[in-house]
Amino acid sequence: MKRRDRNGEIWDFEQEMSSLSSRDGVILGLDGGTTSTVCICMPLMSFSQKLPEPLPILARAIAGCSNHNSVGETAARETLEQVMAEVLTKSNSNRSAVRAVCLAVSGVNHPTDQQRILDWLRDIFPKHVKLFVQNDAVAALASGTMGKLHGCVLIAGTGTISYGFTEDGREARAAGAGPVLGDWGSGYGIAAQALTAVVRAHDGRGPQTALTSSILDILNLSSPDELIGWTYADPSWARIAALVPLVVSCAEAGDQVANQILHDSVKDLAESVKAVVRRLGLCGEDGMDPFPLVMVGGVLEANKRWDIGNEVIKRICESYPGVHPVRPKVEPAVGAALLAWRFLKKESEAKPAT
Amino acid sequence: MKRRDRNGEIWDFEQEMSSLSSRDGVILGLDGGTTSTVCICMPLMSFSQKLPEPLPILARAIAGCSNHNSVGETAARETLEQVMAEVLTKSNSNRSAVRAVCLAVSGVNHPTDQQRILDWLRDIFPKHVKLFVQNDAVAALASGTMGKLHGCVLIAGTGTISYGFTEDGREARAAGAGPVLGDWGSGYGIAAQALTAVVRAHDGRGPQTALTSSILDILNLSSPDELIGWTYADPSWARIAALVPLVVSCAEAGDQVANQILHDSVKDLAESVKAVVRRLGLCGEDGMDPFPLVMVGGVLEANKRWDIGNEVIKRICESYPGVHPVRPKVEPAVGAALLAWRFLKKESEAKPAT
Repeated sequence: MKRRDRNGEIWDFEQEMSSLSSRDGVILGLDGGTTSTVCICMPLMSFSQKLPEPLPILARAIAGCSNHNSVGETAARETLEQVMAEVLTKSNSNRSAVRAVCLAVSGVNHPTDQQRILDWLRDIFPKHVKLFVQNDAVAALASGTMGKLHGCVLIAGTGTISYGFTEDGREARAAGAGPVLGDWGSGYGIAAQALTAVVRAHDGRGPQTALTSSILDILNLSSPDELIGWTYADPSWARIAALVPLVVSCAEAGDQVANQILHDSVKDLAESVKAVVRRLGLCGEDGMDPFPLVMVGGVLEANKRWDIGNEVIKRICESYPGVHPVRPKVEPAVGAALLAWRFLKKESEAKPAT
Repeated sequence: MKRRDRNGEIWDFEQEMSSLSSRDGVILGLDGGTTSTVCICMPLMSFSQKLPEPLPILARAIAGCSNHNSVGETAARETLEQVMAEVLTKSNSNRSAVRAVCLAVSGVNHPTDQQRILDWLRDIFPKHVKLFVQNDAVAALASGTMGKLHGCVLIAGTGTISYGFTEDGREARAAGAGPVLGDWGSGYGIAAQALTAVVRAHDGRGPQTALTSSILDILNLSSPDELIGWTYADPSWARIAALVPLVVSCAEAGDQVANQILHDSVKDLAESVKAVVRRLGLCGEDGMDPFPLVMVGGVLEANKRWDIGNEVIKRICESYPGVHPVRPKVEPAVGAALLAWRFLKKESEAKPAT
């Protein structure tokens, strides 16, 4: 293991470890996003029985951003390696006990991204460890389907993406390209359009809106002109997306501009799901087949009177009545671990002798 | 002059200067944008005669970005001070000879921005020097009206803004708030929508478009998935806006998606001009009064078969037939100097005794 020599201190704990907690080995599931990175460790569960409820989680560790587009490759890898070492320490386990790792990280948009991370991961773990690298959306899907790669997931938090898989292994995604490339249904998209509406009302291009006083109040600004400085003072998308609840309140109070923004967002989010369903044929030939739609992220969880998630489902239902919405009961890192577990299960079923 | 002590080396040349080139003094005009900063020095021209043609320009100096939002206040001020010192050196002149300075810089969006720059400028020049600070759009207007603050200017380069003035001193602006706040008619806006259209065609949300092969070819990418990495590798707006000519070519070749993007941009740009004209009543009570519309920036100067500038004018003309489009013959820095000259002229007319 070249990595142990190079980055020794991270894995030092292994030398002091006398016994292992899980004879049958463990699985690591990792969900790495732009805001935080979560890693969980679960024992390898029996392939012949139903998944236990609740799932046995040996340990959980949390770290910062691991999106290589945001913090650079070196910092992202350091974070990933440290969070995996931490979860193994907490589980009183080590790398020899690991049977599989599923790393689901944002910023994996291309097979070359995937291969680069796999190559790096290969140097950290012993050869027998099965390694999987996925976009973080895949872990979100698996968190709703308990590890089955079938159906569609819609994530709408600060950003948004739709991701789908068929049982025969095809996959497709839509949106998820960030605000520059038109993810207007996301939390960032909703809030940026609300800010735009305030500027337009102020300079005479658009209608007056209750968003103006609400947004200026909460940001403690005295004029829409000051929004320019506020916006460019800190370009973080999450800071802008934090205005979503305020847009929802204005819409609930009857503001037409705010309502239009939310309706546009619903249309956008539904469109990205429908594009994935259509390309994969998840709805069957007659468009009526059932398929799960896992719904994840702050924008879809609002659950207020103006419920963006429900409106999106209604809209998808008009085209694909077989849609079966699922709100996940476990977190995406557990979804990632379950993905790895199902891969091992499939392998063991294919080769019963090993 | 506190500044001379603090930042002595910039103004050292003044001590070695024996005679002045312009007995009647000089005027400095400065146009500071995000890409570059231009400063010109012209002699104080007679108030009683028509402006000479061509205008006498004693010197011109050029420097980098002076937008405090982009490079920070200290770097922006250093750039502004250096470019003014350089143009005075080149003119064989010094600060005592300066009668007026007009600093027209981008990023001046609020009276507090203006006051902060004025306070700083006050420390650099002797007390008798008249100082004016404006948004760079005002210099662009003045470059088309030869210093008169009347009419409207539409700038559409990487960004876009509309700015208007009435003869009795009222002013209004629209757009100019940057892409986050919805400047979709700008060069950046057009190009970002083209990139979005490529992503949407690829993931099934939108129609196929010739933009895909054109954009992938020019960026040397093999798949639309790679656009995400390309976009976030360098978030500079100008780099994205550089794709505008390619969008125009696709539209000219008949691509519907590209045509729609350009038509939307025309609508957006015309809307921002119309908002300013309406608020200021530049068109008179019956909407028929003549007013100048100064047109500036790469997006409006294309002058190809698909001529965005001409389409914008046509659209404005439908509402305000008195619109009189002007393509400036001098650069904005000269416009800034002419603004300062007209202020001095007005002052001398008001108090003929001084």
